[in-house]
Amino acid sequence: MEDEVVLLDSWASMYGTRVRIALAEKGVKYERKEENLRNKSPLLLQMNPIHKKIPVLIHNGNPICESAIIVQYIDEVWNQDPPLMPSDPYERAQARFWVDYIDQKVYDTSRKMWLSTSEEHETWKKELISIFKQLEETLGDKPFYGDDTFGFVDVGLISFYSWFYSFEKYGNFKMEVECPKLVAWVKRCMQRETVSKTLPDEKELYDRTLTRKKALESK
Amino acid sequence: MEDEVVLLDSWASMYGTRVRIALAEKGVKYERKEENLRNKSPLLLQMNPIHKKIPVLIHNGNPICESAIIVQYIDEVWNQDPPLMPSDPYERAQARFWVDYIDQKVYDTSRKMWLSTSEEHETWKKELISIFKQLEETLGDKPFYGDDTFGFVDVGLISFYSWFYSFEKYGNFKMEVECPKLVAWVKRCMQRETVSKTLPDEKELYDRTLTRKKALESK
Repeated sequence: MEDEVVLLDSWASMYGTRVRIALAEKGVKYERKEENLRNKSPLLLQMNPIHKKIPVLIHNGNPICESAIIVQYIDEVWNQDPPLMPSDPYERAQARFWVDYIDQKVYDTSRKMWLSTSEEHETWKKELISIFKQLEETLGDKPFYGDDTFGFVDVGLISFYSWFYSFEKYGNFKMEVECPKLVAWVKRCMQRETVSKTLPDEKELYDRTLTRKKALESK
Repeated sequence: MEDEVVLLDSWASMYGTRVRIALAEKGVKYERKEENLRNKSPLLLQMNPIHKKIPVLIHNGNPICESAIIVQYIDEVWNQDPPLMPSDPYERAQARFWVDYIDQKVYDTSRKMWLSTSEEHETWKKELISIFKQLEETLGDKPFYGDDTFGFVDVGLISFYSWFYSFEKYGNFKMEVECPKLVAWVKRCMQRETVSKTLPDEKELYDRTLTRKKALESK
């Protein structure tokens, strides 16, 4: 029996993007269902009753939620090359640590910068840049976070790349200036079709944030 | 060469408790170093420069941070029986999901209840009880979250048990009444010496919260 794989997704989501990249890396065929997050489908509410969030991967009818957990699941189930998790337990713990760091920090801080008043804006902008500088330091001189191979942390972070344009616009800074090595890493990742063909368009995302910001401000 | 295992810990921490239970389950010998969290040791700051938090497991000089990541690491490195993670990838994803749920919900909500003013108090109390009811529903009629065996989710949740007494005191409710099946599960867990000999004393914890609350209120 062929695997039935369905992804409940939203095109703009960095977390959905992660799962799309992981599935592309493994060459898994799947059906993608775009969710309207303001009017969630009965299927999404049924498959993720706890958080009611995308992405949800439905594998032969069984739902898996939370992007970092889904990527690990994909790596464990479709365990052919390329592996996404390191084989060494210590390296694996480090990879989990950095994806957790990204999950704790990047989205929340960028949102605070994006929505903050002018006094707080500088604080959140500095905080966001310091997070990227930390991630750049962690990468060091390695080509990828998974050393020579594109892996779990690379998937976890590159999914935010389409948002860099919005971060730069709202923060009035340049990633190229602040984190040149991280931008060089982005370019290496973008040489992979699994990444370049999956990431959403940065300008469309920026337009979307403008619309969202306006809607929030008029409330 | 024998493994050198050091745990940077704080007796009251549910996250430190998790790691202690996992090490006890695996029969790993280690040196425990109690941290003064108001005056953190140079070793803690060196080993966890990112979050500066306990617990940190230092294995042959290499630090591992974040309790859920540490427990997975322990299970992968000391991979003799009993296994803590399920062997099936789907079950493993579910176990990760529930530990993540506990990490997202329990501590934050209990703290909000504990520190809130009277109007908000009922809201957070209800929220906390609903989280435990959800966890009880997830357990269902199984003896442990890992089915017949005590595993990753059991370790992740039982570490909060010593705090139930404080939750009940601050919330004016009884876990036995609200979640009788969860309390029966606690009793099953407590039959394991790895748990009963590891958990901190509930009354000492409560006294500590009273002192903390007073200090915060007088600020």
